[in-house]
Amino acid sequence: MKLIGMLDSPYVRRVAICLQLQGISYEHLPLSVFRNMDAIREINPVIKVPTLVLDDGQVLMDSTLILHYLSLLRADTPVPALADSVRALRLTGLALAAYEKAVQIVYERKLRPLDKQHAPWLERVGMQLHAAWTALEHECAQLPLPGETGSIDQAGVTIAVGWSFAQLETPDIVKPADYRCVHAYTRSAETLPAFLATPPV
Amino acid sequence: MKLIGMLDSPYVRRVAICLQLQGISYEHLPLSVFRNMDAIREINPVIKVPTLVLDDGQVLMDSTLILHYLSLLRADTPVPALADSVRALRLTGLALAAYEKAVQIVYERKLRPLDKQHAPWLERVGMQLHAAWTALEHECAQLPLPGETGSIDQAGVTIAVGWSFAQLETPDIVKPADYRCVHAYTRSAETLPAFLATPPV
Repeated sequence: MKLIGMLDSPYVRRVAICLQLQGISYEHLPLSVFRNMDAIREINPVIKVPTLVLDDGQVLMDSTLILHYLSLLRADTPVPALADSVRALRLTGLALAAYEKAVQIVYERKLRPLDKQHAPWLERVGMQLHAAWTALEHECAQLPLPGETGSIDQAGVTIAVGWSFAQLETPDIVKPADYRCVHAYTRSAETLPAFLATPPV
Repeated sequence: MKLIGMLDSPYVRRVAICLQLQGISYEHLPLSVFRNMDAIREINPVIKVPTLVLDDGQVLMDSTLILHYLSLLRADTPVPALADSVRALRLTGLALAAYEKAVQIVYERKLRPLDKQHAPWLERVGMQLHAAWTALEHECAQLPLPGETGSIDQAGVTIAVGWSFAQLETPDIVKPADYRCVHAYTRSAETLPAFLATPPV
């Protein structure tokens, strides 16, 4: 299969790392939705990444739906207990909210001239971004460091990728000193082979 | 359980209809992320809808993750063939892209003063919106009308809810005459009891 999109998108990187962790071989086409619009349009006219092109040519988009597809390929994996699934969905929801808010801030700052940027919007989204990381900080305080345990689940991948993205793109807003457990969790995750193989830049 | 959010959000309505279809009883709190910010913050500090509050108090967000949770409650349902799942994920990805682009247009128009609206952004997002509905038009041409068959799956719900939303919020951009099969599919879906019970306005 082929994964389309640059790893500077947390949504793309989340999928890439899960592909690595699952041991699935794939071709990566690091195309930009802005600089390589025409090339992406030929693969996915909606021009969204991540896009996953299956071996039979079918095209999937939306990182959560793509990860659901990957889970279907592991039919022999034991089904987790409902409580564990709910916890993973809860953490993933928080992390995806953090992605969305960080991306909205990046888009506001980078895709608009200064006179088209809207301060109340940035303020609202920044507040939401902090709320998501505050909740995740409480959660990460209870998690073992993935580099030490040698294992990480999909929710953990989603958290760590989101924090690395926030540090690259919004370091003036969410700071390690305010989210020490998330930061330690992510630094530990970034030592894992699947993360090292898919750097965000 | 409690579902938080107004049905004018396609993400909220998508979940509400799937709850109805699955026969799950729930309390609906139609709170607005703008007008009822403080009330929502007490339930979900990230201020995102849909938010689902489970009976044990855990809070889930993100419509796709919530629907995944609902699917876990139906453990006795036969697992669909992989090809059917992939098709559903493909259609759902297209429909969610259409949601995202329509919401971006609504936010641009309604949350910003005119002088902060950015024409190149609206143009890009509008193009993506058309691309998503064009692909879905081809798909709907092959689907039976849900009101006639009496059945609809999660992908079908997601498509119909998205089209009704687009007709309410962006009727100047995506027009029934250009997407006749999607329009017929949605009109038919909107006759189903689960849709009638959860009107978008």
